[in-house]
Amino acid sequence: MSDKVLNLFFQPKTIAVFGASESIYSYGTRFIQAQLDFGYKGKIYAINHKGEKTLGLKIYRSLDEIKDNIDLAFITIPARFILDTLNQCMAKNIKAVVAFTAGFSETGAQGRELEKEVIKTIEGKLRLIGPNCFGPYCPSGGITVVTGGEFAKESGPVALIAQSGQLSECIIARAQGEGIRYSKFASYGNAIDVNEADLIDFLMDDKDTKIITQYLEGVRDGRRFFDIARRNAGKKPHIIWKVGLTQMGASASSSHTGSLAGTGATWDAFFRQTGAVQVSNLDEMTDATVAFNHLPKGCGLRVGYISGGGAGTVLGADACDNAGMEMPSFAKQTEKKLAELLPGVGLSFRNPVDVGNPHPPKELLYDLLATMSADKNVDVVVVRRILFSVKMSKIFSGSTAPSEKDQRELLEVPVKVLKKYKKPIIIILPDDMTGAESIYLEEERRKIRDFFFANGIPVFMSEQRTFTALSHLAKFRLRNTLGKAADKKIPLPASGSKSRKLFQGVLKKSQTPVLDEIQCKKVLKSAGIKVTLPVLAPSKKEAVTAAEKMGYPVVMKIVSPQITHKSDIGGVKLKLQNKADVGKAYDEIMAAVRKKAAKAQIDGVSIQKMAVPGLELVIGMTRDPQFGPMLMFGLGGTSVEILKDVAFRITPLTRQDAKEMIRQIKGYRLLEGYRGQPPVDIEYLEDMLIKLSAFIEENPEIKEMDINPLFAYKNGAVAVDARIILDEK
Amino acid sequence: MSDKVLNLFFQPKTIAVFGASESIYSYGTRFIQAQLDFGYKGKIYAINHKGEKTLGLKIYRSLDEIKDNIDLAFITIPARFILDTLNQCMAKNIKAVVAFTAGFSETGAQGRELEKEVIKTIEGKLRLIGPNCFGPYCPSGGITVVTGGEFAKESGPVALIAQSGQLSECIIARAQGEGIRYSKFASYGNAIDVNEADLIDFLMDDKDTKIITQYLEGVRDGRRFFDIARRNAGKKPHIIWKVGLTQMGASASSSHTGSLAGTGATWDAFFRQTGAVQVSNLDEMTDATVAFNHLPKGCGLRVGYISGGGAGTVLGADACDNAGMEMPSFAKQTEKKLAELLPGVGLSFRNPVDVGNPHPPKELLYDLLATMSADKNVDVVVVRRILFSVKMSKIFSGSTAPSEKDQRELLEVPVKVLKKYKKPIIIILPDDMTGAESIYLEEERRKIRDFFFANGIPVFMSEQRTFTALSHLAKFRLRNTLGKAADKKIPLPASGSKSRKLFQGVLKKSQTPVLDEIQCKKVLKSAGIKVTLPVLAPSKKEAVTAAEKMGYPVVMKIVSPQITHKSDIGGVKLKLQNKADVGKAYDEIMAAVRKKAAKAQIDGVSIQKMAVPGLELVIGMTRDPQFGPMLMFGLGGTSVEILKDVAFRITPLTRQDAKEMIRQIKGYRLLEGYRGQPPVDIEYLEDMLIKLSAFIEENPEIKEMDINPLFAYKNGAVAVDARIILDEK
Repeated sequence: MSDKVLNLFFQPKTIAVFGASESIYSYGTRFIQAQLDFGYKGKIYAINHKGEKTLGLKIYRSLDEIKDNIDLAFITIPARFILDTLNQCMAKNIKAVVAFTAGFSETGAQGRELEKEVIKTIEGKLRLIGPNCFGPYCPSGGITVVTGGEFAKESGPVALIAQSGQLSECIIARAQGEGIRYSKFASYGNAIDVNEADLIDFLMDDKDTKIITQYLEGVRDGRRFFDIARRNAGKKPHIIWKVGLTQMGASASSSHTGSLAGTGATWDAFFRQTGAVQVSNLDEMTDATVAFNHLPKGCGLRVGYISGGGAGTVLGADACDNAGMEMPSFAKQTEKKLAELLPGVGLSFRNPVDVGNPHPPKELLYDLLATMSADKNVDVVVVRRILFSVKMSKIFSGSTAPSEKDQRELLEVPVKVLKKYKKPIIIILPDDMTGAESIYLEEERRKIRDFFFANGIPVFMSEQRTFTALSHLAKFRLRNTLGKAADKKIPLPASGSKSRKLFQGVLKKSQTPVLDEIQCKKVLKSAGIKVTLPVLAPSKKEAVTAAEKMGYPVVMKIVSPQITHKSDIGGVKLKLQNKADVGKAYDEIMAAVRKKAAKAQIDGVSIQKMAVPGLELVIGMTRDPQFGPMLMFGLGGTSVEILKDVAFRITPLTRQDAKEMIRQIKGYRLLEGYRGQPPVDIEYLEDMLIKLSAFIEENPEIKEMDINPLFAYKNGAVAVDARIILDEK
Repeated sequence: MSDKVLNLFFQPKTIAVFGASESIYSYGTRFIQAQLDFGYKGKIYAINHKGEKTLGLKIYRSLDEIKDNIDLAFITIPARFILDTLNQCMAKNIKAVVAFTAGFSETGAQGRELEKEVIKTIEGKLRLIGPNCFGPYCPSGGITVVTGGEFAKESGPVALIAQSGQLSECIIARAQGEGIRYSKFASYGNAIDVNEADLIDFLMDDKDTKIITQYLEGVRDGRRFFDIARRNAGKKPHIIWKVGLTQMGASASSSHTGSLAGTGATWDAFFRQTGAVQVSNLDEMTDATVAFNHLPKGCGLRVGYISGGGAGTVLGADACDNAGMEMPSFAKQTEKKLAELLPGVGLSFRNPVDVGNPHPPKELLYDLLATMSADKNVDVVVVRRILFSVKMSKIFSGSTAPSEKDQRELLEVPVKVLKKYKKPIIIILPDDMTGAESIYLEEERRKIRDFFFANGIPVFMSEQRTFTALSHLAKFRLRNTLGKAADKKIPLPASGSKSRKLFQGVLKKSQTPVLDEIQCKKVLKSAGIKVTLPVLAPSKKEAVTAAEKMGYPVVMKIVSPQITHKSDIGGVKLKLQNKADVGKAYDEIMAAVRKKAAKAQIDGVSIQKMAVPGLELVIGMTRDPQFGPMLMFGLGGTSVEILKDVAFRITPLTRQDAKEMIRQIKGYRLLEGYRGQPPVDIEYLEDMLIKLSAFIEENPEIKEMDINPLFAYKNGAVAVDARIILDEK
């Protein structure tokens, strides 16, 4: 459940502003000015130890002087006064505080210490947004950010959260221009208390918010953020502009807000598992928001495309293919009708349609769009380079341009078709001329865009941007239709399982952070994973006895907590067929180890029956600093190590996650059976991943795990080698 | 050498227009109107069988009536009259014809036939651009396209060629707005005579053209186009917007102009080998043109970046990384000076620099940019979100915005720094607000952009677009510095080589299009490729004799022209150690073949000494419908077949091509020696690729070739199996 206190940030009836002064340049005063400009209806109390007046308001010397209840405190005074101010707030029972002030962890060690003290001070007593943030904007609450005096006063269905204040301004400014209106926005800066997880949780329950958008550098509480985002999957569209995904970006990000930016593989898993919509720049963010604003339930994959000119069909088809959308064949009767409508040479009446003339008569355009909209093979109709601005039309056609009246009426055609057929129509309306002298064309273009927006038709600037936005709609819809959103059952073991007890026993005995192969396999076996269980033989004699007992061929491996890549130093011998082989192998291994790892502690060798060769796979586990444990799946050998053909998922895994991660690797074709080989037991592998996910969740002491190789067969699979590294903390 | 006749298309002194009429809607008349509007200085003759007048000009009934010499004929009459018109042109010794008229191959079989007749008619007598095209635009020649009456009259350094007429309008309209001016442009439509190769060849020699740009669906004469583009490498920047690279796009393209669009792998090879600059949409095309327009020699990789706000450093760093550019550490003294200039909390004086305040005083900005420009680690300085438009600044800062005068003076700072330090400066100037009511901001933005353009500073709209454009400049410069452009020596065999003679002998004898392994290896050996040469044994007895002679272990394979995937049907036996093994293997192979390929013609088995195992590689050759033969290089096994980790190059290969294609595959690390394995003989592999390139060039009868596996060793490599398929034509 989300924290209801958070509502005080967005709909406060009274606000106390710490740091307002007579100077209009002080941020406190600028904040008050912004509220006055914005039309805040509640009561504002300015506070400053000097007293006096500002913007016609009395400045109180301290909170004590104010009789009223205060819903929200807004702090702009220097960082060194923060603790004192927070204590005053708590004394007055204030539950919501925005710390606008900068100078905390983003500046270094001293700032980090101060943040820790702040957290200790407020814990459980009040909620704080910031420090180093712009705070909230909420039209229905009448509150805005320092620089948001001119933000739109109307509410809308979109929410935005972002650490950065300045970039949020850009996002909002751009979105407003494209007709977007906001329910709530918060810039939350260093996120020492209220973080992205809290805000997303709150917005998911917020009835005024239908679409959640987010600019994200790093997360504070990755695990909770992931859980909340996954819980929302398929409900409200959740659009995230994640930055810092490159190495350069991540290091620039950590100097910016001191939060972890995360690696590509981790975030790839996050987006796949939560179904959040990933966008990668301001244009894409704006376009996706526009798209969901008009089509909040998403749309299908199948596009009917029409262009006024042949090159436009190629550009459209390329963009469609790149975005993973489809241009299906029309139904027979559609093609027939389109062929009748388009008798000219060189025109295409198949999908994508080429009208040839970028200025067709309005009757013709109506018939074309109506015919395409009526086709059951088509989910959405895209119109390119037919609906120009009237003035642009004149430039491109000169004296032969249609009359202004005809041109204006042409623009009404898609609206009429949409009303009748209720099938989404999208319009590509580019800014063909960007010269200073052509500004009047851009002026007209924006008016026409707004006319379409007002009539429920999304408009984008290019083929690429159109299909990228559409693909976000389609993927969102797909998740719902496939029932993926419903697959939220996360298999977890009952607490205190046998496997957990065994693992705890191993932990107690283990002297080093690396579990040896025998220990690893015993715990994995107890967790339901099939293994080739080795026997520890501390001496040559015991090695021979063990081998004789289990039957040949056997494998021998060195057992030492210091040696993890055993085969690299000659510590592995395969296919030992008899007593003599075993004895010789023992001597050779010991000689090799003495030479290459003289200081290693030797516990002996392990002897195991050699597994029947199968398809070599690898399952690994690592701990991401933001999201915690992640499982990895891939083909063995060079596929993993050199070609990096692997898939990651954040645990705990759902069945769907396990299914998808296996199918995500390029080498999946090998699992299906290739060149006469039988397919391997994929369902068994899914089960195994789910069991391992539960095992990892149950045993938080594990830092890393490798099952390599895992042999997969027509029936089942077996872990041939495994290692587990413990978290030393 | 380029065809000088082509100059008549761009600088004609006299033009005859077929199809002009009294109607202002006829294309002939529209063409004349456009020349009059544009200010054509030569003489225009209108022709139409009806006579009369148009636009104040006499209409001649036929070419015969005109006494003057005609440099260029422009044909707009229907397709069915084209042959007659061309005959008239030839009778009057006209050397250059533009066929604007549509209705040829783009409409189907009849049109294709007509094109063939046109080609036959004009061959060697005149040059024709079109049909189905807009023709030329050339300010210095005073000539323009039908819709180009308002195109710029000033000349510039950029040339453009494109099949599509309509899309060219968009490209030119957009580029003109961004300050680009053209030397020459041609829309060449179906390209039945003058094609992209002719035009590029011409433009490379054209002294008025410094930058060549191209919108490309498919090529007509791929091999010549490739040769010409490669010859230009490193001289004039050659920017190509290649469309139809997706499957959907390619099929839309072929219905558009009837030309092949080509596959991704082929075009990837083309761009790598020629060094042409690949762009993928209108924005990128425009940006790259703007970039080369200001920095025609390219620039280095190392960017000094400065942003007015922390989020901007993250966006910049991400975009920089994605584009393959660098943000190096500044020199010590630079950091020291920047630290003194930026004493505020949370600001970064390292690269990327965060000024914090998006409106720094002009003195501070000067010092910052000067310090960065003076740093020897920096090739180019990028400035983000500091230089707003004056009005935008006011919106974001409200009452605390600097004065208009200060803001205006701030804009002059980069110009002053550039003049003093001569280090390229790039400015990111986004359109933050796109609302209809914000049009005045866009108006001012364009004026500021033009101010920077006029002072030699490229301006782009976003971080992504900036770094993408910069990466084109940097890659172009890199090619030159690395001397790659100079590596144009293409090793080719002397004609009539021994290898060619041997191959011709094999050809004569071969009854099927598939050469058997023994034939393949003999020809490959003669071309200098080391092979494991097998002996053909038509009977069991001969198989045993051959094996005894060459020594064990041996490999036995079925020899049959119908069986290509030998191991799939049990036609291969490895590791035969003695006489008995050989006899048994023979029987088993024959039994398997009788069962699985009963109708195949069996020539016997091949016996070869088993090669020492090495790193398994594959070299293949295939024939691209546009570019002809291509070589492929990859790792053997699943790497090629499933993971598609392969590199392609169009033949003939240069040494540089061979070097790069080997290093391009992800599995290259294996070749360098991995996990204790020795590295393989990479130089030997390069030699081998060059030899194979020459072999392929010399023997055009080869349709496909596979060397699989090729075993590579520390010294040398050997082709263990090979097959060649002949072109049946």
